[in-house]
Amino acid sequence: MAIEIINTGSELMIGRVLNTHHQWLCAQLDELGYTVHRQVSVSDESSAIVDAVQESLSRSNAVILTGGLGPTSDDLTRGLIAKLFHRRTLVHEPTLEHIRNYFQSRGREIPFKCEIQAQYPEGALVIANDFGTAPGLLIELEHNPFNSSGEKALLIMLPGPPRELRPMFRDRVIPLLKEKLPNHQKHASITLKTACVGESLIEMEIAPKLEELVHQGLQIGYCARVGEVDLRLSAFGDSAEEIVRIAEKLSRDTLGDKIYTEHDEKLCDIVVRLLRQRGQTVGTAESCTGGFISNQLTNVPGASEVFLGSCITYSNESKVILLGVDPQSLKLHGAVSEKVASEMASGLRERLGVDYAISATGIAGPGGGSEDKPVGTVFVSLSSAGGTQTHKLFYPYDRESFKLSVAQFALDWLRRTLNGI
Amino acid sequence: MAIEIINTGSELMIGRVLNTHHQWLCAQLDELGYTVHRQVSVSDESSAIVDAVQESLSRSNAVILTGGLGPTSDDLTRGLIAKLFHRRTLVHEPTLEHIRNYFQSRGREIPFKCEIQAQYPEGALVIANDFGTAPGLLIELEHNPFNSSGEKALLIMLPGPPRELRPMFRDRVIPLLKEKLPNHQKHASITLKTACVGESLIEMEIAPKLEELVHQGLQIGYCARVGEVDLRLSAFGDSAEEIVRIAEKLSRDTLGDKIYTEHDEKLCDIVVRLLRQRGQTVGTAESCTGGFISNQLTNVPGASEVFLGSCITYSNESKVILLGVDPQSLKLHGAVSEKVASEMASGLRERLGVDYAISATGIAGPGGGSEDKPVGTVFVSLSSAGGTQTHKLFYPYDRESFKLSVAQFALDWLRRTLNGI
Repeated sequence: MAIEIINTGSELMIGRVLNTHHQWLCAQLDELGYTVHRQVSVSDESSAIVDAVQESLSRSNAVILTGGLGPTSDDLTRGLIAKLFHRRTLVHEPTLEHIRNYFQSRGREIPFKCEIQAQYPEGALVIANDFGTAPGLLIELEHNPFNSSGEKALLIMLPGPPRELRPMFRDRVIPLLKEKLPNHQKHASITLKTACVGESLIEMEIAPKLEELVHQGLQIGYCARVGEVDLRLSAFGDSAEEIVRIAEKLSRDTLGDKIYTEHDEKLCDIVVRLLRQRGQTVGTAESCTGGFISNQLTNVPGASEVFLGSCITYSNESKVILLGVDPQSLKLHGAVSEKVASEMASGLRERLGVDYAISATGIAGPGGGSEDKPVGTVFVSLSSAGGTQTHKLFYPYDRESFKLSVAQFALDWLRRTLNGI
Repeated sequence: MAIEIINTGSELMIGRVLNTHHQWLCAQLDELGYTVHRQVSVSDESSAIVDAVQESLSRSNAVILTGGLGPTSDDLTRGLIAKLFHRRTLVHEPTLEHIRNYFQSRGREIPFKCEIQAQYPEGALVIANDFGTAPGLLIELEHNPFNSSGEKALLIMLPGPPRELRPMFRDRVIPLLKEKLPNHQKHASITLKTACVGESLIEMEIAPKLEELVHQGLQIGYCARVGEVDLRLSAFGDSAEEIVRIAEKLSRDTLGDKIYTEHDEKLCDIVVRLLRQRGQTVGTAESCTGGFISNQLTNVPGASEVFLGSCITYSNESKVILLGVDPQSLKLHGAVSEKVASEMASGLRERLGVDYAISATGIAGPGGGSEDKPVGTVFVSLSSAGGTQTHKLFYPYDRESFKLSVAQFALDWLRRTLNGI
C-alpha cells in the first residue's frame, strides 16, 4: 500500500511557511500501518500540480493532496483535478448551504468568490469541513490511468489550514481510507516517550537488549527533540505483534519511569490528568520561562479544573509585589538563585492556595550571562505541602529551546511527584 | 534556473520530525532569486534516494540533497551518489584530520565508524563543516546524464543537523552557487504581512487594483495563517523591480496600517521594538490565553527591557487576589465580561506600574460555553494612561488557534496604539 503526499502552495516553495502537514499526516498514516513512500511540495502553478499528481499516481495506490481548495485565485486544485480526469464540475448543494450558514452565524457577508468552494468534480465524494468552508474531496479511480498496472487508486484532496485539515482527516478520511484501501499486511508499533534523558544514553541502554529481536524483524527508531526522546518499536508480518510486545517489555524494564507515555500526549496532558484524578491544583511562578509552562498547561482542555493561575515575574519588583519574594534575597543572592526560586514557588503557593507551585528563574540569553551564572543557568523549584525543593540546571540553548527544556524538566518533575515516584 | 530539494530521512516519512530544512532552504534560495520548483522527501532507502535524485536531475539545473551523510548504518547518500555517477570513493585527508581534531578537542574517543565521513566521490568538492564532522559535497556534472538537454548541473549534498547545515549553506554553499549557477534573470519580491484581516477580504481589496500589473508579469500570493495573511508580490525580468515597487505602493495605499511589516518578524518583535524605542513597559493579565501572550513577548531577545510581568488568572479567586478585580463584578457580570476584562487590565497596570496592560478573558472551549456566551467569546482590554478600552470578539476555534487569534488581536492593537494609529 504505497501512499504519497503532495503539498501544494507557493508559500511553501519560497519558505514563507513551515510544512506541518507532512509530519502530521505521516505520523497519522504510520499509526495506521500505511507507508508514505514520498512527499512532494510544489507551488500553486497548474503544470506543477498536474505533473506532481500524475507522477505520484504512477507510483502509488493513494495520493493525498493538501491545499489549493480555498476561494482565492491561487486555489487551483479543484478545477485542475476535474480537468485531469475529464470530469464536469458540479455544485454541491449541502456545501453551499454550509458556506452560507457559516458566514451567517458569524454575522458576516459571504466573501467574494467563497461559494466556488461548493464546486466538485463529478463523481467525487465531498468530505464535510466542520471547521471551515472548503470541503475535502475524494476521487476513487477504478483504473489508475497513470499506472501501467491500471489498479484502483485513491486521490484525496484536503484543505490547507491545519485546524480544518486535521479534524477532517482524523474523523472523516481515516474511516474512508480503511474502507477503500484496507491494509492487509500485519503491522505493529509502539512509541515510548521519555523525558529529560539523552538519545545516546537511551540507545546505549536499549540497543544491546533488543539486538536479538532486531534479527527477527524489529525496527528501532530514536527520535530526539528538545527535552525528550521517543523510542519507536515496530515490525511487519505475522509475528509483528509478538515482537513488539516483547521489545516493549524489555524497554520498560530497562527505562522504567523515564518513559512517561506510549500515547500521543504531552507531559502537560499527563500532569493535568493526574491532578484531576487527585482533585489537586497547580500554579506557576515564572521568570525566565515567561509564561511558557503556564501556556502549556492551559493548552490542555479541562485545565481550568486544576490550574488556578500564575505570576510571570520578569522584573525584581514584580517578584516582590506579586510573589512576596524578600527584597533582601534578591539583593544578597540575585534574581537567578536557589533562594529566589524557592521563595517564588512558596510565595505563589501561599497566595493562590494551590497544592503544587512550580517556579523557574534563570538566564535565557542571548545577553545577561556572567562567569558565575552563564547564559543557560536556571533554578527550578517545586513547592507543595511537603516543602519546597530546588534544582540547578544548565541549558545553554536558544531562547525557545531553553524555555522548552526548563518546562520539560519542571513538568516531568511534577509528574514523578504526582506518581509518587 | 530550476532548483529542487530532496530531504532524505526515514524519520521524516513516519512523521517523527518536522522538515525544517525545506522552509529554511527555500527562504534562502528565494532571497537569492532562485526558484525551487519541487521539494521531495524520501526515506533512507537506497532505491528511494537514487530514484529521487535521478528524477530531480531530469527536471532541474541543481539539486540540493539533505541528510544521509552521517556515520550510522542508515547514512547512505555518499556511497549511493558515488555509485550512481560511477565514481570511486576516496579519502579526504583534511576532513579525516578535522574529524580527529573535533573529538580530541572535546576529550572524546572517535566514535565507531565516524571516519567514514571523510570519504567522498572522486571529483566532488568537499565542503568543510565548521559545526560538526560530516562535510558537505558538491558534484559538478558537465553533462547532466538524466536530462535530455545534457546541460550542466549541480548536485549539492548537505548534512542533516540544522546547526551544521545552516552555517554551511550560508557561508560556503551560497558563494559556490553564485559562482557555478549564476542567476542572470532579474527578480524582485516583497512580502507584506497583515494581521487580523481575512484572506478573501484582502484579495477583494487588492486584486482589482493590481490586475493591470499582473498582465505585466506581477505574481500575487496570499498566505493565510491563524490571525494573519501574508501578501507576496513578485516578478521576474528586467522590469521586475519597477513592477514590484508599484504593486507595493498600490497595496500600501489600499491596506494602510493593516500591513504591520515587510520583514521576517512577528507582531511581538515589533511591539517589543516599539516599546524599547519609547522607553515604555508592558504586562499582561490573561485568563483564557493562559500565558500565551506573555510567552510570545518573552520569546523576543531583549524583552526584559520592556516586559515587567503578567498575571495568569484562571480562577475567579486569582483574579481578585492577583489583580484586585472586584468580586461584585465577577458576581454580577461573570468572569467573561467587559467589566472584568477592563478591571483585569487596569488592575495589572496599577499593581506593576506598567505603561500598557493587555487583558483577555473568554471561553476557549471545548467546554464552558453557554447560549449567551458561546465557546469562542472573548473580551480583550488595553489599559494605558489614556484609559482602558475593551473589545468583544468571537473566535470559535480549537484552544490553540483561539489563543493565537486573541494574541494576534491584542498585539496588533498595542502596535497600532504605539504607532499612534
